[in-house]
Amino acid sequence: MEKQIINRLREVVGDENIRTTTAELYAYSTDAGIHRSMPDAVLRPKNTEEVAGVVKLANELLFPVVPRGAGTALCGHSVPVAAGVVMDLQRMNTIKELHIEDLYVVVEPGVVHKDLNAKLKEYGFFIPGPSSGNVANIGGMVATNASGGNAVKYGATRDYVLGMEVVLPTGEIARFGSRTLKNSAGYQLEKLMCGMEGTLGVITEVNLRITPLPEATAVAVAVFHTLEDAGRCVSNIIAYPVIPSGLELMSRVCIEAVNKAVCLGLPDEEAILLIEVDGSSNDVKDQIEKVTEICNESGSISVDFTCDAERKEELWRGRKAMIPALSKYHDDLVTVMLADDMAVPMSKVPEAVKAFQAISDKYDIIIASYGHSGDGNLHTKVLMDPTRKSHWDQAEKAV
Amino acid sequence: MEKQIINRLREVVGDENIRTTTAELYAYSTDAGIHRSMPDAVLRPKNTEEVAGVVKLANELLFPVVPRGAGTALCGHSVPVAAGVVMDLQRMNTIKELHIEDLYVVVEPGVVHKDLNAKLKEYGFFIPGPSSGNVANIGGMVATNASGGNAVKYGATRDYVLGMEVVLPTGEIARFGSRTLKNSAGYQLEKLMCGMEGTLGVITEVNLRITPLPEATAVAVAVFHTLEDAGRCVSNIIAYPVIPSGLELMSRVCIEAVNKAVCLGLPDEEAILLIEVDGSSNDVKDQIEKVTEICNESGSISVDFTCDAERKEELWRGRKAMIPALSKYHDDLVTVMLADDMAVPMSKVPEAVKAFQAISDKYDIIIASYGHSGDGNLHTKVLMDPTRKSHWDQAEKAV
Repeated sequence: MEKQIINRLREVVGDENIRTTTAELYAYSTDAGIHRSMPDAVLRPKNTEEVAGVVKLANELLFPVVPRGAGTALCGHSVPVAAGVVMDLQRMNTIKELHIEDLYVVVEPGVVHKDLNAKLKEYGFFIPGPSSGNVANIGGMVATNASGGNAVKYGATRDYVLGMEVVLPTGEIARFGSRTLKNSAGYQLEKLMCGMEGTLGVITEVNLRITPLPEATAVAVAVFHTLEDAGRCVSNIIAYPVIPSGLELMSRVCIEAVNKAVCLGLPDEEAILLIEVDGSSNDVKDQIEKVTEICNESGSISVDFTCDAERKEELWRGRKAMIPALSKYHDDLVTVMLADDMAVPMSKVPEAVKAFQAISDKYDIIIASYGHSGDGNLHTKVLMDPTRKSHWDQAEKAV
Repeated sequence: MEKQIINRLREVVGDENIRTTTAELYAYSTDAGIHRSMPDAVLRPKNTEEVAGVVKLANELLFPVVPRGAGTALCGHSVPVAAGVVMDLQRMNTIKELHIEDLYVVVEPGVVHKDLNAKLKEYGFFIPGPSSGNVANIGGMVATNASGGNAVKYGATRDYVLGMEVVLPTGEIARFGSRTLKNSAGYQLEKLMCGMEGTLGVITEVNLRITPLPEATAVAVAVFHTLEDAGRCVSNIIAYPVIPSGLELMSRVCIEAVNKAVCLGLPDEEAILLIEVDGSSNDVKDQIEKVTEICNESGSISVDFTCDAERKEELWRGRKAMIPALSKYHDDLVTVMLADDMAVPMSKVPEAVKAFQAISDKYDIIIASYGHSGDGNLHTKVLMDPTRKSHWDQAEKAV
């Protein structure tokens, strides 16, 4: 990137908010996945006008701009594959307005999901989000239509977006959607923006719907002889119908990895389901009864519900630590995201996990299967020694 | 429209599925609102290929095509303002696939909402919809992003659309979205299509998410001295938070009209709220208690919950009969939709209904206010003698 462009960018965001040293560029060359490409510069704008200024300049001088939140994604969303500028939006982290009785909030894109929920908790509300919510930013969640363990009951980020401010590729500042739950006027462009990954503009403000925190929750560990049994139980729960607020599948490798990393004491078996139900206290009681019955009928070895706050927290912390835990599973192996994030109809979960196992056997490679099975969202992580060519070869065949 | 075009259309849909007599064109010149414009022809295609054939022809010969479901909308969505062809999709009314355990169905656009729900009820599921659901078609619901009384809890039609088949303006057949609850791959074009009112294409098949029927419901009539009090109670319920499955506001004119038309025996007061709660039996009990307390604290004259199936049905039938009932309110007056369908944040409901009243007084005109106040969706119907110029003048000023 020419010195002249850098100088013009400096004028827009200020000297202290542009970085060009190799170390800093390296830090912004990847997300939480395996893709990597160096940007020419990193900018940290502090408001919509600065974002618009950068985009206008990019439009005039024709350099790529890649907006970025916390960079927690695993699929390379924020990796600057054609170099250019990475625009880090984490300084725009103000919760601008709380409209509790109107069920919405207005936030800047750099607000951390956990921080927003901490604020909303004071009023008895929350917004569902991905497993990386402790660090993930709202802007990134919207731009990738993030969703996590509770999506089967609560939906994905797109289901919470009421409106937004977007800097279009021309640098123009546009507003889409509204501040009302009801809105059917004109095209639902705010929904189109969910999952566009920065390709249609840079999100600089979001109006998000909020939802009441459940009065009670309970979490069960259900243990199975085979992954397929666990998958079949997922289908049976949904079809009953019970819609749990979480329904996580973990294969043996995952169980062992999590036990090792965070001493969770999960049973040493082929598969477990982590099942969370929520609602009013009475409602939770009813659901515990139903889920226990369905697990038993689906051939579970055991199913154990807990309402203990500490144990629930511990189980979810274990689940959320899955990715780092897998990398500690074996001294010589690391987790590589090659075919990571896929979705199937829930009834196909048993078939899918069976196929993962067969592929793992065929190519003699360790595949860790887990996922938000409640909405058919499955992950497969390949565990391999990245210095060995044979591992890469086998992994690629497996993919 | 030239005879030659009509003949080419005849080739696409068959002789018996094209209508050009004045009486038939007249029937298709309006929806349930006040706008009217005559088409040149009405077509009734029976499958996607015929729809594509018509659109290709339109693209070649440059005549307008207006797709249409049951025509229950009040805003002129399906009125052929530039003449051309109205394409009635009601013959495409097959429920093609039921995937209960995967929580979705595949339907043609002409399926009636009520019929789909009757089928889903057998499995313990439903899809929420508008008050006109007894006749409204799924295609129209998607194309207008329809929503009704239970949207505050269950969302609008867009929240149920997973994917669709659309005939684009070129006649090309496209598929958007997926069959899975989880989907963040590519642009969410299926969401953009929700509410596009036929301007971006003709919807020929839809994948819709389904949701479990609640175990129990209860309905209350809460009575208030003023519309504003009732509006304030709406805010208080939402902020508590209790998210009812229905929260309908009715002003005096509406109460009288409904009482007269369907003998509902509603109390003779300024305002009532119709409040529905649903969930597990225990959950419903808890909500009844909370809502009763909030109504009392919000100054309600009385609040009366019923779990009686017949009475609940009767109350909702009364609410759904609102529009015809208003036209029977007075022998010389009819309901005219001039500024009908609006949305405000819920906390602004009291202010909005107060303003409607002030406008009504100022212009000496009867305005019936009601609406799905739970998500801030309000309706105002002007009651007037359409033969009197003074009524039109006053009504226009009021608008």
